[in-house]
Amino acid sequence: MMKRLLYLLVFSISLLITSNATAGENEPPAWIDEYRETAEKLIEAALEPENMDFMWERLAWLTDYYPYRLSGSEMLEDAIEWMHDNMIEDGFDEVYKQEVMVPHWVRNEESLVFHGPWSRELRMIGLGSSVGTPPEGIRAEIMVVGSFEEFEERSHEAEGKIVVWNVPFTTYGETVQYRVRGASVASRAGAVASLLRSVTQFSMQTPHTGNIRYDDDGDPIPFAAITLEDAELMQRFQDRGEHMEVHLTMGAEMLPDALSHNVIGELTGSEKPEEIVVIGGHIDSWDIGHGVMDDAGGVIATWEAVRLMKELGLQPKRTIRVVGWTNEENGVMGGRAYRDMVMEDGSFENHQLAYEIDFGVFEPLGFGFTGSDEAFALLEPIMELTAPTGAVTLREGSSGTVDIGPLMREGMPGMGIDTNTERYFWYHHTDADTLDKLDKEDVAKIIAATAVMIYIVADMEQRLPW
Amino acid sequence: MMKRLLYLLVFSISLLITSNATAGENEPPAWIDEYRETAEKLIEAALEPENMDFMWERLAWLTDYYPYRLSGSEMLEDAIEWMHDNMIEDGFDEVYKQEVMVPHWVRNEESLVFHGPWSRELRMIGLGSSVGTPPEGIRAEIMVVGSFEEFEERSHEAEGKIVVWNVPFTTYGETVQYRVRGASVASRAGAVASLLRSVTQFSMQTPHTGNIRYDDDGDPIPFAAITLEDAELMQRFQDRGEHMEVHLTMGAEMLPDALSHNVIGELTGSEKPEEIVVIGGHIDSWDIGHGVMDDAGGVIATWEAVRLMKELGLQPKRTIRVVGWTNEENGVMGGRAYRDMVMEDGSFENHQLAYEIDFGVFEPLGFGFTGSDEAFALLEPIMELTAPTGAVTLREGSSGTVDIGPLMREGMPGMGIDTNTERYFWYHHTDADTLDKLDKEDVAKIIAATAVMIYIVADMEQRLPW
Repeated sequence: MMKRLLYLLVFSISLLITSNATAGENEPPAWIDEYRETAEKLIEAALEPENMDFMWERLAWLTDYYPYRLSGSEMLEDAIEWMHDNMIEDGFDEVYKQEVMVPHWVRNEESLVFHGPWSRELRMIGLGSSVGTPPEGIRAEIMVVGSFEEFEERSHEAEGKIVVWNVPFTTYGETVQYRVRGASVASRAGAVASLLRSVTQFSMQTPHTGNIRYDDDGDPIPFAAITLEDAELMQRFQDRGEHMEVHLTMGAEMLPDALSHNVIGELTGSEKPEEIVVIGGHIDSWDIGHGVMDDAGGVIATWEAVRLMKELGLQPKRTIRVVGWTNEENGVMGGRAYRDMVMEDGSFENHQLAYEIDFGVFEPLGFGFTGSDEAFALLEPIMELTAPTGAVTLREGSSGTVDIGPLMREGMPGMGIDTNTERYFWYHHTDADTLDKLDKEDVAKIIAATAVMIYIVADMEQRLPW
Repeated sequence: MMKRLLYLLVFSISLLITSNATAGENEPPAWIDEYRETAEKLIEAALEPENMDFMWERLAWLTDYYPYRLSGSEMLEDAIEWMHDNMIEDGFDEVYKQEVMVPHWVRNEESLVFHGPWSRELRMIGLGSSVGTPPEGIRAEIMVVGSFEEFEERSHEAEGKIVVWNVPFTTYGETVQYRVRGASVASRAGAVASLLRSVTQFSMQTPHTGNIRYDDDGDPIPFAAITLEDAELMQRFQDRGEHMEVHLTMGAEMLPDALSHNVIGELTGSEKPEEIVVIGGHIDSWDIGHGVMDDAGGVIATWEAVRLMKELGLQPKRTIRVVGWTNEENGVMGGRAYRDMVMEDGSFENHQLAYEIDFGVFEPLGFGFTGSDEAFALLEPIMELTAPTGAVTLREGSSGTVDIGPLMREGMPGMGIDTNTERYFWYHHTDADTLDKLDKEDVAKIIAATAVMIYIVADMEQRLPW
């Protein structure tokens, strides 16, 4: 106890010293002063109780009435229509939809029954884009492995079995490889199906879905996620030499591509209307949970940031374009279609910045930026004005920016917001991604930080050098 | 940021001052010194890697092979037999089973379909002892209420409806009243079934079961738990004036009482074998999850505490009796049968203490005691010797002591262990009560704290005054 308290004390003091040292390190450039008052106004408005209630009910409405927004579904198109109509009602200057053809994968009925020392139906969720099983399902012995390396060594055992990837979460980027590639790797060794330990640090018997990819060689085999709990249970039974089988049934199928839409609303710029700051999130979601943090929150936060500007009568020099991209979860066809549109109409080069929120609308901590050093240096002083929201750091490299990825890969500067993502992967792609996981004031702060950053970027004299 | 750090600093300093002030406040009595070396040995043994591996695999084995230990099930009796045989193998002096007749409730198939702005099957779990629905289920409009008081005002609306108790968690004792009484209250107003927001502070679409009680007046109506997420969703839809129905189907039924057993192992006392310290947890669980923290952990921890004494060749003056009580979850018939046994054989008065672990085997913090002030004063100095495990406080009032409740109500001193229960109600009575929720070293510390406390209480010269 004493030791712990001493640590706490030393830690506090060192933090105090550090934060004193960094404060006032750089003198802000003079142009930042022009935005001081506007920034304060935007933050105040975002945190004003009436606005907080409005945005919270807007978020609740979107996710209560249109919770399962999977590409190809009617519910997704209804959500897009609802957003379109509400942006018109808000008085956006231009509101329109861009047609996008999207993959149309459907889950249908699915189940998993365990047969080991005892038999029981287990929690599972089919992975996006997986093929289904025959109607009677597949029953086979399971083989549990902890890594690609272990599988390599034991791949001669895989013939005719169902391979269970029991890989503990390290980082998302690392662990998600087993979701993306697991089925193809297992299939090449003769496995008849595969199961994935859900990609998460923590589980309450929570299976996580997400998209997979089949390599061109090898048969596509059915692939589903199980829970962390059951993966560890199977591992322990295997370590004790138990024989185990599972009976996997999946009705999943890929239908012909369907028509969907990016939904777009604009606040026209006062002086350089042809120059664009594009911001948004993705309006589609998986077919479980309500897709609240992933990514209704990102859509609502960017949209509300611009609605606040309108409410305050603020019109920046450049045009701000809010986009609800479609099909982020299983194709990114919305992001690609947007890139194609601006490449074709010649407006690509006129973009000042692309900004996306898709890593949870939790407590804001700062921003991540991908672009030139000169642009980074221009943006950094803005942090002084977003700081009251908690967004205090600008770092290199953006997170949660899949939909603007196609733009960024062509050289456009991109930005995402950094939030407290401690629990992000607990809920990610699960039926626990629901409204209660968010904090109203944190979302309001995300809106405030976004409004300040985006207003300034859209209004500043300087073009951001690419 | 600065403000927050300053608070942290001031808080740390104040804690340091406080903890310095309390250290060395009371001089320990001389007899405590006799136990100093033994206590150190027990703690060292409990935290020894080989013993930790042994107890952890024992806990895993019990809950992997016998996860669904509901009263009346074969799996419960198999678990009891397994514990019986393993206590013999450990070399306990006496190992036996006490016959107990227990309620035999079975869940069978159950489901809940929501029909509101959209239709979807929802997560649910039937509550223990609930009656079932007719085979075709019950479909009716729902009525969401937030408290008994609100229901009182609106009870005229309940006729023919399904009442949804959307009551946020405050304390378990307070909120669980809606689980215990909710069906009867709704039934008296003419409701045809009832749904309960699960009793928890946090949910990942996790329904919680638990036992209910039907009052003698009014028809028993089916009663099931839904998730926090869905209860809040229904509330929001109701607040917006939406019409909602649910279709509830439950195959639950109460079968004739079944034969179960308390399982008992003894370490015979060296000088006063007729005097008894009874310790244990409950071996039964619900039929979902693996009943790891509730309460395989309590059973294993008390059992292992005594096994360690045997391993170290420690034999206290009094007999220590380890009990795996049956039927804690839906009847407490095991705890009552034990009381009846010791009342009948005249050994009740010879009990020195009853000790139970049933509030999670998380990081130990101390003990709770129900008994005379004199006994409390005698026990308090022991905390100095359990302190290295983290168990530093003795407080009045015991938690997690339902099975020894019948003994305590007859005047026997009772004790429970206090642990870090921050997440206890997240997992309580859910399918997320699994091995991964526990920390091996924390369980070892619980065993260490229990071993020290119980060895001393069983060996000390003094009888604890009742």
